[in-house]
Amino acid sequence: MNHFYQNHSLKSLLAILLIVFFTPVFRCEAQVTDSAMIRQIYSQALTDSRCYPWLEYLCLRIGHRLSGSAGAEKAVNWTRMVMDTLGLDSVWLQPVDVPHWVRGKAEQVTFKAPGQKKWRLNALALGGSVGTPDKGVTAPLVEIKSWEQLAQLGKAEKLKGKIVFYNRAMDMTRIRTFDAYGRAVDQRSIGASRAAQFGAVAVLVRSMGMQLDDSPHTGAMRYDSNFALIPAAAISTNDAERLSKEIALHGDKAQVTLKMNCQTFPDVLSYNVIGEIRGTEKTNEYIIVGGHLDSWDVGHGAHDDGTGCMQSMDVLRYFKRLNIKPRHTIRCVLFMNEENGLRGGRRYAAEAKRKGENHVLAIETDAGGFTPRGFTFDGHSETFKRNYEKVKKWESLFLPYGLNMAEGGSGADIGPLKELKGLLSGYSPDSQRYFDLHHTPADTFDKVHKRELELGAASMAALVYLVDKYF
Amino acid sequence: MNHFYQNHSLKSLLAILLIVFFTPVFRCEAQVTDSAMIRQIYSQALTDSRCYPWLEYLCLRIGHRLSGSAGAEKAVNWTRMVMDTLGLDSVWLQPVDVPHWVRGKAEQVTFKAPGQKKWRLNALALGGSVGTPDKGVTAPLVEIKSWEQLAQLGKAEKLKGKIVFYNRAMDMTRIRTFDAYGRAVDQRSIGASRAAQFGAVAVLVRSMGMQLDDSPHTGAMRYDSNFALIPAAAISTNDAERLSKEIALHGDKAQVTLKMNCQTFPDVLSYNVIGEIRGTEKTNEYIIVGGHLDSWDVGHGAHDDGTGCMQSMDVLRYFKRLNIKPRHTIRCVLFMNEENGLRGGRRYAAEAKRKGENHVLAIETDAGGFTPRGFTFDGHSETFKRNYEKVKKWESLFLPYGLNMAEGGSGADIGPLKELKGLLSGYSPDSQRYFDLHHTPADTFDKVHKRELELGAASMAALVYLVDKYF
Repeated sequence: MNHFYQNHSLKSLLAILLIVFFTPVFRCEAQVTDSAMIRQIYSQALTDSRCYPWLEYLCLRIGHRLSGSAGAEKAVNWTRMVMDTLGLDSVWLQPVDVPHWVRGKAEQVTFKAPGQKKWRLNALALGGSVGTPDKGVTAPLVEIKSWEQLAQLGKAEKLKGKIVFYNRAMDMTRIRTFDAYGRAVDQRSIGASRAAQFGAVAVLVRSMGMQLDDSPHTGAMRYDSNFALIPAAAISTNDAERLSKEIALHGDKAQVTLKMNCQTFPDVLSYNVIGEIRGTEKTNEYIIVGGHLDSWDVGHGAHDDGTGCMQSMDVLRYFKRLNIKPRHTIRCVLFMNEENGLRGGRRYAAEAKRKGENHVLAIETDAGGFTPRGFTFDGHSETFKRNYEKVKKWESLFLPYGLNMAEGGSGADIGPLKELKGLLSGYSPDSQRYFDLHHTPADTFDKVHKRELELGAASMAALVYLVDKYF
Repeated sequence: MNHFYQNHSLKSLLAILLIVFFTPVFRCEAQVTDSAMIRQIYSQALTDSRCYPWLEYLCLRIGHRLSGSAGAEKAVNWTRMVMDTLGLDSVWLQPVDVPHWVRGKAEQVTFKAPGQKKWRLNALALGGSVGTPDKGVTAPLVEIKSWEQLAQLGKAEKLKGKIVFYNRAMDMTRIRTFDAYGRAVDQRSIGASRAAQFGAVAVLVRSMGMQLDDSPHTGAMRYDSNFALIPAAAISTNDAERLSKEIALHGDKAQVTLKMNCQTFPDVLSYNVIGEIRGTEKTNEYIIVGGHLDSWDVGHGAHDDGTGCMQSMDVLRYFKRLNIKPRHTIRCVLFMNEENGLRGGRRYAAEAKRKGENHVLAIETDAGGFTPRGFTFDGHSETFKRNYEKVKKWESLFLPYGLNMAEGGSGADIGPLKELKGLLSGYSPDSQRYFDLHHTPADTFDKVHKRELELGAASMAALVYLVDKYF
């Protein structure tokens, strides 16, 4: 054995010893530091956050903010102004043309059966629906519980001239209410054209709600231009239950009259609102956290999605307050027009692609401002597995805060970013109360709990922190 | 090799093959069956439960029910009657003498500083406190943030003739609010005697609440009979903040007047309410699930602990509805007097011990009716480890429902059962909203969410099912 080899093998031994003895120490220290940093982020959020008072302002001073409305314009200007106070590196508006649908006069849906007094249902026109003639549309009802039943009755010409009443309830046995929603919402989104195909003159849809109450839930619908555009409205779950009984009792002798005043106007210029902290190392690599600034035109749009927007702004604020200088550029993106068009999300992704902006992680918070339960992760098939395995290892860091990590959908606004091959994540708060409020006049500021909201913002800031450090 | 050995070794081989090939199959089937059964329990709870309408009756028709009150008596009779309708094998009342403390006329706590108008604080006498003379107790205030500070000022004779104002806030950075409560509640429970020791004439305590609001939180206190019994009241967190500023401003020149009318009367006969389904195999081995039927004398006692009582009754109802015939005897126990004496819990344990009733598992649900987050487990040092390891293996069965299992405290009422060496469990729902309501006039029926309540009842029924099957 010559000197060289001897020396080499000593060096190897030393290297191995170094690896064996020091790596676990470093690993352990990194873990301690990460958990201490996460602890600090949560403490910051729980003692010095702004998301809750911001939300109060958004809800009580601005109110709801459907794309193209004056409320939406105010919300754009105000959130831009708020971001301007946070000491970010830049804040700007990203222009986007949005649809402009207007509800008009309050809709009237009335029921009349022989020998009964007429009664009025709690109803809301679906977003995007056409209106009715001034005298309304009057017809008997046919209750429909499945697409098969619709097709069967349609082919038998039983729907011609009728109002189709979709009454397939959300599945109460689903634990995550979003699963129940996903399985029922097709009635609302495509029900009108499906019914028009068989000659129906209007549709009523049982509200997408998980409880029996008097609040109608509006929401988006889309027409298939091959068929007549017929008016569509949601009715409250209580009214759906009553209507079902009345139809069983009176059949064709009972009639509903629908009067709706809604109209679609030409597109309007609006904006995504964006703020960023420039990264110190990977300046052209991006981590974004965002929600949607538009809402439906009822209630305050508090949980949908005022909470998500205010949380997203606070995430950047925590980085500034804690003096964390991120390696990647971190953005807060308030998307416009999630509810009825997704134009903001598409526009943001198109710009990112055009500029070659590598988006490492995008988090969307659009599932309410309730207690955090976890994150779901999604991504491009080429890169997802590797990325997900990396974040999944941090799950233990989130367990003290009650969060789990799982594969699953992320969010509508960030969906178009998938082709950029970064990791997409949906922030998942507790879902039990969300569909009591979603798209209803009841989605108001008082339904939001300060600590629950703050814990959510902290959870996202912690995830951003880890991805920024290790990606 | 003789025939015997050959045969024997063939038999061994067969046995090994049987073990190797069949055990995993059996195991797998058992798992599938358990998860299917748990699924069925949750579906039962989410589509056909009674806990929510029962709670409505308890809250709106009976209302609060402090031990010894007419409300408590009504609650005993009504829950017994409800259990009588469930087809249980027996339902009975277990007598227990309880304390009888009465608040009397509404307490008045007023503040007066030189040159200011007098203002009235939102206050509630602490349960068990003595009253004041009719003209009240008037004195300057000393704000106290720690026991060290109290002792220091006390030894310097600075507390003599003063009203001590305990103003150590709950720690907002704790994720589980019960942790923050546990670290602050000593001010309420032992603060009066500690202050009396140094000559103070009364105490005010900052409410044990996690938010700034106007609701005072009452709760139990106990006197040390070595010192004078001085009156004690809780004030709202908003008033505590204001008082702190006023004291800083005015010092000894500001005074508070406390008028309280409360009194303690002789003990009253009351009852634990118990229902049971007799076990088919291990009839003298017991699994119990329970909450406490008494409440404070404000609000509805909805989350504390109407929810726990109604859930416990529903657990037994699910077993009947699903036609599950338990091997062990399963009991629902509604304990009397958790809030100010724990007499019901002690009495139940003493009877169980006297009769030699082996209690395999006791679950207490007394942490609110919010979305389930998990179970904590506790037990006797001789048996705990083995028992806990057994249940911890089922954690994966609960993950689809969002529950984790951990070591930790169980509940006040079942604590005295520890010496019987069975497993004790505390049902742990989400804790974020609990200390906004706890012991306040705001703990009312409308704060309870139907699905959250049902999910909790289902979670406990599932745990009872597994322990019954495998213990």
